[in-house]
Amino acid sequence: MSAQNLTLLTDLYELTMMQGYFETQENQTVVFDVFFRDNPNKGGYSVMAGLDQVIDYIKNLNFSYEDVDYLRGLGLFSEDFLHYLSGFHFSGDIYAIPEGSVIFPREPLLKVVAPIMEAQLVETAILTILNHQCLIATKASRVVYAAQGDGIMEFGLRRAQGPDAGLYGARAAVIGGCVGTSNVLAGEMFDVPVMGTHAHSWIMTFKDEYTAFKEYARLYPDACTLLVDTYDTLKSGVPNAIRVFTEMREAGIKPKSYGIRLDSGDLAYLSKKARKMLDDAGFQDAVIAASNDLDEFLIHDLKMQGAAISSWGVGTNLITSKDCPSFGGVYKLAAIQNADGEFQPKIKISENIEKITNPGNKTIYRIYDKETGMLRADLICFADETFNTEEEDLLLFDPNATWKKTLLPGGTYTMRELLVPIFQHGECKYESPSVKEIAEFCRQEKKTLWDETKRLFNPHKVYVDLSQKLYDTKTKLLNEAHH
Amino acid sequence: MSAQNLTLLTDLYELTMMQGYFETQENQTVVFDVFFRDNPNKGGYSVMAGLDQVIDYIKNLNFSYEDVDYLRGLGLFSEDFLHYLSGFHFSGDIYAIPEGSVIFPREPLLKVVAPIMEAQLVETAILTILNHQCLIATKASRVVYAAQGDGIMEFGLRRAQGPDAGLYGARAAVIGGCVGTSNVLAGEMFDVPVMGTHAHSWIMTFKDEYTAFKEYARLYPDACTLLVDTYDTLKSGVPNAIRVFTEMREAGIKPKSYGIRLDSGDLAYLSKKARKMLDDAGFQDAVIAASNDLDEFLIHDLKMQGAAISSWGVGTNLITSKDCPSFGGVYKLAAIQNADGEFQPKIKISENIEKITNPGNKTIYRIYDKETGMLRADLICFADETFNTEEEDLLLFDPNATWKKTLLPGGTYTMRELLVPIFQHGECKYESPSVKEIAEFCRQEKKTLWDETKRLFNPHKVYVDLSQKLYDTKTKLLNEAHH
Repeated sequence: MSAQNLTLLTDLYELTMMQGYFETQENQTVVFDVFFRDNPNKGGYSVMAGLDQVIDYIKNLNFSYEDVDYLRGLGLFSEDFLHYLSGFHFSGDIYAIPEGSVIFPREPLLKVVAPIMEAQLVETAILTILNHQCLIATKASRVVYAAQGDGIMEFGLRRAQGPDAGLYGARAAVIGGCVGTSNVLAGEMFDVPVMGTHAHSWIMTFKDEYTAFKEYARLYPDACTLLVDTYDTLKSGVPNAIRVFTEMREAGIKPKSYGIRLDSGDLAYLSKKARKMLDDAGFQDAVIAASNDLDEFLIHDLKMQGAAISSWGVGTNLITSKDCPSFGGVYKLAAIQNADGEFQPKIKISENIEKITNPGNKTIYRIYDKETGMLRADLICFADETFNTEEEDLLLFDPNATWKKTLLPGGTYTMRELLVPIFQHGECKYESPSVKEIAEFCRQEKKTLWDETKRLFNPHKVYVDLSQKLYDTKTKLLNEAHH
Repeated sequence: MSAQNLTLLTDLYELTMMQGYFETQENQTVVFDVFFRDNPNKGGYSVMAGLDQVIDYIKNLNFSYEDVDYLRGLGLFSEDFLHYLSGFHFSGDIYAIPEGSVIFPREPLLKVVAPIMEAQLVETAILTILNHQCLIATKASRVVYAAQGDGIMEFGLRRAQGPDAGLYGARAAVIGGCVGTSNVLAGEMFDVPVMGTHAHSWIMTFKDEYTAFKEYARLYPDACTLLVDTYDTLKSGVPNAIRVFTEMREAGIKPKSYGIRLDSGDLAYLSKKARKMLDDAGFQDAVIAASNDLDEFLIHDLKMQGAAISSWGVGTNLITSKDCPSFGGVYKLAAIQNADGEFQPKIKISENIEKITNPGNKTIYRIYDKETGMLRADLICFADETFNTEEEDLLLFDPNATWKKTLLPGGTYTMRELLVPIFQHGECKYESPSVKEIAEFCRQEKKTLWDETKRLFNPHKVYVDLSQKLYDTKTKLLNEAHH
């Protein structure tokens, strides 16, 4: 599959504003931040994903002859501007939090430092890509958490919002912790495990269920999961599966993995009954897999009921993040570089205090407890601030309730800068890890979070604080705006 | 943009089942139906969309050398089967309901008649494409209905579930009735209107709001919609916009279209106040546009409150169909051709009566009242059934409550077959209309529905009935299954 040219995958207003800047301004360098305001599903954290596709998008940015011709036909753009577009390439800097990282509201996930015309153009596609993959990686991480160590398979392609949603959704799902996907193209493109069983139509094309099972087992003896609910799960499906497993045993065939899949009915009841039937027949190692409109809440509930299921196929609810199908990432102007090369902080005021932006050219430090390695807080500060973690105490405070303070004595904490350089002067300086490596990194990241943050219901919020310097600048700008 | 090869955009189990058929069966011709069980959002109808992309997918089906090599690496497939795949092309027939048609639960939207190996492979991608576009076209149609004739602009790209979701979502939104989209790539690819205004960042890069407005009006005098909520809508935004409009008037500039956009706050209150301010200044023809997390219910409610808004930008809730982000289209085996060339009906049993499939090689007739042209019912029947509408009475009955009957006397009704040939023997026989033509067709289709069916809340259900012959066959198969 060739890389798509997504240059025109943008809102029209990005282009009309670009022309506006072209006509009226110096194309000064600006800073835009991507951030989000709330974790999906009232969760305690989110998962960063999609950066590799943002990199591809930026690398491939160019207006083809056909693109320029199409824009000319709209009658909105001058020939001078169209000429500029035909030579366009991205020349700025991009910093981002690596994929697989746990992320929190209000911190910049990605920062664009570029001439304003370039920075404005890339807004829409960057948001489209990150909003989608962060959403699905976060949802997957919740589902995986609910399964308490059981494998979650991503099975949602047919209900995804178009081909890309299936493809990149599968990628994000694996980053979030799924053991594999049914999506073969995702397997090919991202080198992630692909898995699957068979459909009801397989059963229906044979003269009976037993024959269909027997043929499937003959063809796929090493991954023989039989779908048992076509006719009657306990009266027909499970007995026929046991008959086939027994024949395999008698023939001396030892499958690497075998078992049954339940796809309808009361999964708690059916799985316990099926478990007993399999165990009684001597198939204690047969896996019981389940599917059918599952999500993290249902899996959590089935676990509570003692369902005898150890492998889960999750479709629609995962691939669309059904109960929260959008990730509210936004792209906001944070600073404008003046003639002296200094970044002048800019703030977007709002009546809603949560919607007020953090001004300036910033970075983020993640603070860990030195002894336990657990995450203490994230600290947003100006990009040029430095901290001496060994010798200096660090005073953290809630920016919306400044009397809530925590003092970390020097030597008791460590810091890691989250934003890393991705593009510098238009050149990509970053090589993305493989999806498997990103997934492993995500697994490690989640180990630094307490269960109180990871739980599904009413999680504890991780502190995202501002440095004293950033807080003071923000307060000053707010006071000036309300003079 | 080149056509993507989506051949591997399929669930792994389609390929393992294909190999299973390759090893065990005659590759007999089968019939699969795509249908759905419920309208999204408890609506009274849905809108067909996505067929043109299904056509592209089928035309481009082929396993590249790399695809075959990847599959070989999975260790699941025999060399014989991989050899078959390397020469694969689709050789079957496809029938479908044209895009823009109103559609109802349980009727086949698309029917594949093909050798089983081919029919099985295409399941996933066909569902992915149709499920997505039908969902968004249906949602758009609801939003458009709520706006009572006002224009709805699709503005959701940045919150779409990936690039395709934005692109094909915009296409589907225009089919469903949106007047245009912010998505420039959708404009280029599908020749649909693109539209937009400017962002808060435009305002923030100028020394003040007035200067930003003045420059925007100078650049885009013919489509001059000014975003008025950056600082304070009524105290700053609207007065500055009026100042700029006044200057335009004094300079003798008559814009084709101009006005303001509200993007936050109480849209009912602000629009009425802004309307009065604009009217008092002599700008009765200035358009007030609104955005900010709108959907059909909010628009309906704002209309009820007398909001002075006549143009609506709808983003997240439309492009993700947020309150119902998946369309439950399924793909079920309906018949297998026997050695005599006859189609043997197949039925999928379920404890849930709504989940029992309709067996056989079928078609659908849409029945209209001859006098009013209004839709009376859809009738699913076998593909070879014929009706003499002029001379024969038609007895319709509810297949789940057969005592509910309606007799249409001959000569009082007309019929139109909904399924049209798309592919025959693997060759495409259908040329898709343009998106604009499809949108116009959809508009006409909706005129055949009563408001009782189109309303947002508790709509009247359109009857989808079975012919006597199909009903009898289904009953017989059900009785045989429960012998």
